[in-house]
Amino acid sequence: MKTQASLASQVVYGVHAVRELIEQRPTEIQSLFYALGSETPSDAIARVLAAAQQAGLRPVGKSKSELNRLTQGGVHQGLVALCGEFQYETDPLVPVLRAQEAGRTPLVLILDGVTDPQNLGALIRSACVLGADAVVLPQDRSAQVTAATIKASAGATASVPIVKVPNLVRAMEVLKESGLWLLAAVAPGQGGQPLWQVDLNLPLGIVLGGEGKGLRPLVRKTCDLRAEIPMLSGLHGASLNVSAAGAVLLYECLRQKGLSQSQSPSQPEASPTNP
Amino acid sequence: MKTQASLASQVVYGVHAVRELIEQRPTEIQSLFYALGSETPSDAIARVLAAAQQAGLRPVGKSKSELNRLTQGGVHQGLVALCGEFQYETDPLVPVLRAQEAGRTPLVLILDGVTDPQNLGALIRSACVLGADAVVLPQDRSAQVTAATIKASAGATASVPIVKVPNLVRAMEVLKESGLWLLAAVAPGQGGQPLWQVDLNLPLGIVLGGEGKGLRPLVRKTCDLRAEIPMLSGLHGASLNVSAAGAVLLYECLRQKGLSQSQSPSQPEASPTNP
Repeated sequence: MKTQASLASQVVYGVHAVRELIEQRPTEIQSLFYALGSETPSDAIARVLAAAQQAGLRPVGKSKSELNRLTQGGVHQGLVALCGEFQYETDPLVPVLRAQEAGRTPLVLILDGVTDPQNLGALIRSACVLGADAVVLPQDRSAQVTAATIKASAGATASVPIVKVPNLVRAMEVLKESGLWLLAAVAPGQGGQPLWQVDLNLPLGIVLGGEGKGLRPLVRKTCDLRAEIPMLSGLHGASLNVSAAGAVLLYECLRQKGLSQSQSPSQPEASPTNP
Repeated sequence: MKTQASLASQVVYGVHAVRELIEQRPTEIQSLFYALGSETPSDAIARVLAAAQQAGLRPVGKSKSELNRLTQGGVHQGLVALCGEFQYETDPLVPVLRAQEAGRTPLVLILDGVTDPQNLGALIRSACVLGADAVVLPQDRSAQVTAATIKASAGATASVPIVKVPNLVRAMEVLKESGLWLLAAVAPGQGGQPLWQVDLNLPLGIVLGGEGKGLRPLVRKTCDLRAEIPMLSGLHGASLNVSAAGAVLLYECLRQKGLSQSQSPSQPEASPTNP
């Protein structure tokens, strides 16, 4: 069902997002605009424009009102790029094999129906910063990589492979066959072990459900392990926001790998002097 | 400088936020509105309205367009409450003493200039769910508790004390004198120990800087300890979003306390059977 419409331009905006795009995927940029105004552009914008020129792009000044219109009122910070449609990966095995070839233990973040572009962007940012090899999304009932997602990711969408799949459970089975263990993040009281008691130093797929709905039953059933982030609150039906939960899960993986690499953990180097 | 204007109504909306308000602070609610429409209200709304009636409130039906106007286009999910101004705590010692009296090791989240209401709301939610005793904010150069913050917190603003102080460094000094250790979250390469190597099983204040700017120098200098969340990314100037970082820090406190309480950690109960 791909049509011409799917080649339409995409709008990327904000200092971080545009800078990452220029550094990672400059050939996708069709036009680059910066805000004209009486003020001198900020150092941050000047640096991005210099990088753009080095990459062979020709930034064009536009009025702020025109940039507001292009971004439909988004917080563009004076920088807007128009580019081709976002390029998803389609095969979840590709980033796994790439990680294995580079000698890394693969780590993939699998999102079952995250629908808020802010949350999706924040999860992609955390995945990138905390060392995940890919983010896997279903094509339906999920936020996609839009301008708002790219902005919320601070440009990380240009750095971490994002795999869009027609059938999430099928993709999970393929990943299992390739040697990954799949860990379902579940709410407290749903049969998960406390996260810190689960051995995460494995080829791993972390599977997170959408806001409010959690994991679909078949997705949960396809997982090998269940973990919960224990909670203390008296807040009714309380849970972490999905992007907070994702950051915690990715951090715990990093912590366990960090401990297994440096075999002399735990002693603080400096003694604090207070109180 | 308190004037009549500070008594003006505040708008709280969304199913979670309104439910928490009814359960925690029903006397602050002046009016409660739900969306009139051809559809039956969802189970979630019906439960909130039943709880409201039990709390002595009289919910009033309004058109969706009127609720849109009241919330200035916010995602109200058919529930809107008007109430008095948000009640901040003013003394950071009060929640610390309360925790000590309850036999808990105090844990306070201190935010130095978080300016985005979404991030502030998400941090308050994580603080509440992961067991912090209070969130401390400066009155200037910081997001405050607005309708957007309350919505983003999923109502946690009604459950965790929020302390607003005129001088953040002064408040930090008061907390230190009361026995808290202050931990600055710093970016990688700024002299922090890896987070998991820092002993967090202490009376603790976690100090986080604002988006992009980080901690002000005097705030950082007032801290006793520095920790970083190690990052793996090739993303330039990459860092976690402040609300993701906050969730990770609070989780690590919980993990260390959980381990010190259950003295037999680490062995998974079930062996996975794959692959």
